[in-house]
Amino acid sequence: MTYPNGLSAFPITPANDDGSIDLGALRQLLSPLLEARVDSIGLLGSTGTYMYLSRAERRRAIEVAADMSGPVPIIAGIGALRTDDAVRLAQDARAAGATAGLLAPVSYTPLTDDEVFEHFSTVRRERGLPLCIYDNPSTTHFEFMSDIVGRLSRIEGVVAVKSPAPDPAQIASHHSELAASVRGGFSLGYSGDWNSAEGLIAGAMTWYSVLGGLFPHTCLSMVRAAQRNETGEARRLNAALEPIWSLFKEFSSLRVVYTIAELNRAVHAKPPRPIQPLAPPARAKVEAALAGLR
Amino acid sequence: MTYPNGLSAFPITPANDDGSIDLGALRQLLSPLLEARVDSIGLLGSTGTYMYLSRAERRRAIEVAADMSGPVPIIAGIGALRTDDAVRLAQDARAAGATAGLLAPVSYTPLTDDEVFEHFSTVRRERGLPLCIYDNPSTTHFEFMSDIVGRLSRIEGVVAVKSPAPDPAQIASHHSELAASVRGGFSLGYSGDWNSAEGLIAGAMTWYSVLGGLFPHTCLSMVRAAQRNETGEARRLNAALEPIWSLFKEFSSLRVVYTIAELNRAVHAKPPRPIQPLAPPARAKVEAALAGLR
Repeated sequence: MTYPNGLSAFPITPANDDGSIDLGALRQLLSPLLEARVDSIGLLGSTGTYMYLSRAERRRAIEVAADMSGPVPIIAGIGALRTDDAVRLAQDARAAGATAGLLAPVSYTPLTDDEVFEHFSTVRRERGLPLCIYDNPSTTHFEFMSDIVGRLSRIEGVVAVKSPAPDPAQIASHHSELAASVRGGFSLGYSGDWNSAEGLIAGAMTWYSVLGGLFPHTCLSMVRAAQRNETGEARRLNAALEPIWSLFKEFSSLRVVYTIAELNRAVHAKPPRPIQPLAPPARAKVEAALAGLR
Repeated sequence: MTYPNGLSAFPITPANDDGSIDLGALRQLLSPLLEARVDSIGLLGSTGTYMYLSRAERRRAIEVAADMSGPVPIIAGIGALRTDDAVRLAQDARAAGATAGLLAPVSYTPLTDDEVFEHFSTVRRERGLPLCIYDNPSTTHFEFMSDIVGRLSRIEGVVAVKSPAPDPAQIASHHSELAASVRGGFSLGYSGDWNSAEGLIAGAMTWYSVLGGLFPHTCLSMVRAAQRNETGEARRLNAALEPIWSLFKEFSSLRVVYTIAELNRAVHAKPPRPIQPLAPPARAKVEAALAGLR
C-alpha cells in the first residue's frame, strides 16, 4: 500500500496555559476535517505543538481523534529528543489508535546521518507503527539528503516522507531526485503550504497542510485538481491563497493559524509560552486577508 | 557583585541508558574540579545533556553537586522548551542548592526577540535564582544580538551571559560591542573552548569550559595567565591544546569529552541516544591526542 496520499490536514492542538489539551476544542477543529473527508489527519505536527506537550497529553489527543475519525487515517507526531522517549511515544500512538507515526529527528545536539538512521530504525524496530519521516530542518535542524531518505525508505514499515517544499523553481528536480532514491511505492509529499501546489504538480503524492487543518474544502479542491492533472486550476486555487501564504511567511504558519482558528472556528487557544500569539497589528492583517478570501 | 568569573568548568552528566544519572560517576567527575578550586561548576550544560534529562534527574544532579561543592558556586542548566517548565526547573535548582541558573532559549518553533525576552523575564520574576544567559545558537537556534543581551542585562538578577566565542579575529570587537550594550557590573564570558583564550585576552570575565570539566588545572593555568595579562603564556597554553580543539571541531566537544572521561577518569558513560559515542577510528584519534599532551 502506498500511503499517505492526497490532503493530510494538520490542525493545531488547542491547549490551556498549563499544557493540558482542550479536548472539546480539539473535537471542534477535527469535525469539519472529517466531514470534508480529508485523506488523513496530521495530528500533533509542528503547528500541533507536539514538542510542547507531555506524553500523557499527546496520548489523550490521539485517543480523541481516533475515536471520531472513522476510516480517515491519523498520522500522529511521535518525535522526541531521546530515542527511548520516541519509542514510548510510538507505542502510545499505536495503542491510542493512530494509523502511522510522524517521526522528526528532533535535536538539541546536532545529529549525524548515522545517528538519525539508528534513531528511526530503533523506533520502527520496537513497534509495529508505520512511520512517516518528518523532514523539517527549520525546527529539527537536521538536513535530510536524498541518500538518507533512500536508506530509511528501505526499512520495512517506513512508508513516507514529508519534505519541506523547496522554491517552485527547484521542486521538480527535488522531487525527481528523491523519487530516484527511495524504494518503489514509497510516498513522497510536501509541507510548507505556500510551495506545496507545485509539489503536487511535480508528482508528489501528499500535501501535508497546515491550512488544510482549517480550510479543508479549499485545500482538497487544490489537491483534487492536481490529482486530475488540472494544473491551471490547481495554480489558480493556490494563487487565491497568496494573502495567507504571505502571512505564513511573515509571522510563521503556527502563529497565524492560531489566529485563524480563533476568527473562523471560535477556538480561543494560545500557543504554548514562550511562543506568543500574534500582536494586534498582525492580527489585523490576518483578519483583512480572511475577509479578502470571502 | 560581578559574577561568575574565571573558569566555569562544565562536566558531563554520566547517565545510564534509561536517563537515570550515575551519581557515583558524577561525584567522580566533580571531585577533581573542586580540589582544583575552579571558580564555578557549570552543571547540566549542553555537554551535560540537560535537555535529555528529566526534571527529577536534573534535580538529583544539582543536589549531589551542591552537597559537595562547599564555597564553589554551582551554575545549573535550567533550559526547557516551555516557559512554565523553565520556571519549575529554576525553582528546583534553587531548592537543590544551585547558586545561579543557566538559561538557554531552547526552541523548536523559532522564537522572536520579544518571546525570548518575556521567557527570561518570567523565569526570573517567578523565583530568586540569579540567571546567566546561555547563548548557544548551534543548539538553541536563537541568535542573541547585543541589543537583546543589553535589554536582558537590565532585568534585576540577570547577572551574566555565556556567549559562543567568535573567531579570534572578531572577538575583540564582539566583546567591546557587548560590553557597550550591557549594564555595568554584568559578567561577559565565552564558551567554545577553542576560541575562548582570545576571549579572555579581549577582556571577558569568564571561560565556560567543556575541557575545564576534565582538565581543571590546565584550564585554570590559562585563565590565571590571562587574568594576570600574561597573554603570551595564555596563548602558549592554549596552543598546546590545539590537538583537542581540533577534535572538538571535527567530532563535537560533547562526543569527544565522553571519550576523554572514559580514558582519563574511568567514567564509562555513553551520551543519550540518538547521540552515539565516537566510533573506534575517532576514539583512536582522541587517545593519540591525549598521549601527545602528556
